[in-house]
Amino acid sequence: MRFIRHKTLHFQHCDPAGIIFYPQYFVLFHEVLENFWTEALGLPYGDYIRKQRLGVPAVKTAAEFMAQAWLGDTLRIELGVTRLGSSSLDYVVEAWREDTLCARSTCTVVQTSLETRRSVPFDEPLRARLEDYLDV
Amino acid sequence: MRFIRHKTLHFQHCDPAGIIFYPQYFVLFHEVLENFWTEALGLPYGDYIRKQRLGVPAVKTAAEFMAQAWLGDTLRIELGVTRLGSSSLDYVVEAWREDTLCARSTCTVVQTSLETRRSVPFDEPLRARLEDYLDV
Amino acid sequence: MRFIRHKTLHFQHCDPAGIIFYPQYFVLFHEVLENFWTEALGLPYGDYIRKQRLGVPAVKTAAEFMAQAWLGDTLRIELGVTRLGSSSLDYVVEAWREDTLCARSTCTVVQTSLETRRSVPFDEPLRARLEDYLDV
Amino acid sequence: MRFIRHKTLHFQHCDPAGIIFYPQYFVLFHEVLENFWTEALGLPYGDYIRKQRLGVPAVKTAAEFMAQAWLGDTLRIELGVTRLGSSSLDYVVEAWREDTLCARSTCTVVQTSLETRRSVPFDEPLRARLEDYLDV
Repeated sequence: MRFIRHKTLHFQHCDPAGIIFYPQYFVLFHEVLENFWTEALGLPYGDYIRKQRLGVPAVKTAAEFMAQAWLGDTLRIELGVTRLGSSSLDYVVEAWREDTLCARSTCTVVQTSLETRRSVPFDEPLRARLEDYLDV
Repeated sequence: MRFIRHKTLHFQHCDPAGIIFYPQYFVLFHEVLENFWTEALGLPYGDYIRKQRLGVPAVKTAAEFMAQAWLGDTLRIELGVTRLGSSSLDYVVEAWREDTLCARSTCTVVQTSLETRRSVPFDEPLRARLEDYLDV
Repeated sequence: MRFIRHKTLHFQHCDPAGIIFYPQYFVLFHEVLENFWTEALGLPYGDYIRKQRLGVPAVKTAAEFMAQAWLGDTLRIELGVTRLGSSSLDYVVEAWREDTLCARSTCTVVQTSLETRRSVPFDEPLRARLEDYLDV
Repeated sequence: MRFIRHKTLHFQHCDPAGIIFYPQYFVLFHEVLENFWTEALGLPYGDYIRKQRLGVPAVKTAAEFMAQAWLGDTLRIELGVTRLGSSSLDYVVEAWREDTLCARSTCTVVQTSLETRRSVPFDEPLRARLEDYLDV
């Protein structure tokens, strides 16, 4: 099962060449990760950071940009979990403009305490919900 | 009549103090202006820029920030037109978190040709649609 | 006396019209405010936020954009203090491309505790240094 | 030979966890690429985009984030060319905080006409300058 959100490319995402500036892909992909946390995992991302004092910093990422995406395009962004460790996970995100795959990225994040800066294992309810999105 | 959109504060909007970094308000307000163009005026903003080669650069803006807004907050952003000139207009945007007004901004924009860099009067159909949102 | 820094317009500042996207002016002006704190006031801005747990959130700002600035332009940004209250101050920033004034902004900020979210008066050494930049 | 620039982490780069938000690394790395074009290759990046109507869009990137970097930190960013094709090249960038490697990224870019959207071979003078930075 994949988590899907649509995002429209706004002025702030685009560069003088008229297309998305690629660092903005990572911003959009993180937005979808926050949507996934809030809507699919049932952990409102703002509370997760501010009240639980947990975070999921990236330790590694990679991306390919296959086709251009323009101001005003609405991209269908799909997120799936590809590996689930005790406190870390890998996910993949793809950005589609209709049938064209514009970008594909993988990312490894580690659940981390914002207080101690140490990794924190996923608890069982969270692990169970993450397993629903395992895409292997 | 006001044009209304909801926007959630994401990681990219917030600063190490945990609240929205105020330049990001202007980014969000511009997003709502683009939504207004596309959805209320019937001019898809991407086409407006890329095909019609028109734009609405800001010549003047002001803002007040009355209450803090945090990561994860969903703001109700309301936009109204407060003055309609031949090629320029003023609009007001307000960002509400439930009953709390968090920020209020005014802005003057001028319809401009991206080719000649000169102002271009609004045509009649656009003027008629803008008048529906005159909020005086 | 004014505090002066030069900033070059990079890809991330510019929009599909090829010029600076105006919310990015506020980002650049804040960069210069951080430089001012660190270099002119002798309060490294990172320590000010992270160790002193103080901040200077904006409560009000206004800006005029007089002339276009393009990708690759280097702007001379001048900052002066225009009012010095007990815990708040007003400053003005101007962005010049050689002899052309491209943008001018005013801003009111309040020194605030990031812990209590209450205003905190400037101490005497800070007030003395701020007075050197009073531009009235 | 590597091209080196120092970049300070400002408010806009940092997130509510107090550290750099990783998409901002790609923004900083692109800034250094623009500096490299302008200062090392002798092609002012603004002219390259606006007058020559060429660009170097990324087709692939990867990054590892090894150590946290905080608001106010000044990073030494080193860029080297690792492969030089006819119209594409790979480069590596590393962000160091004193002796600590905070992030390392590789990127493949293709010189592209902004008019035709097709790849354009590097001319001989540009190729010669790029070879000086081949880091293999």
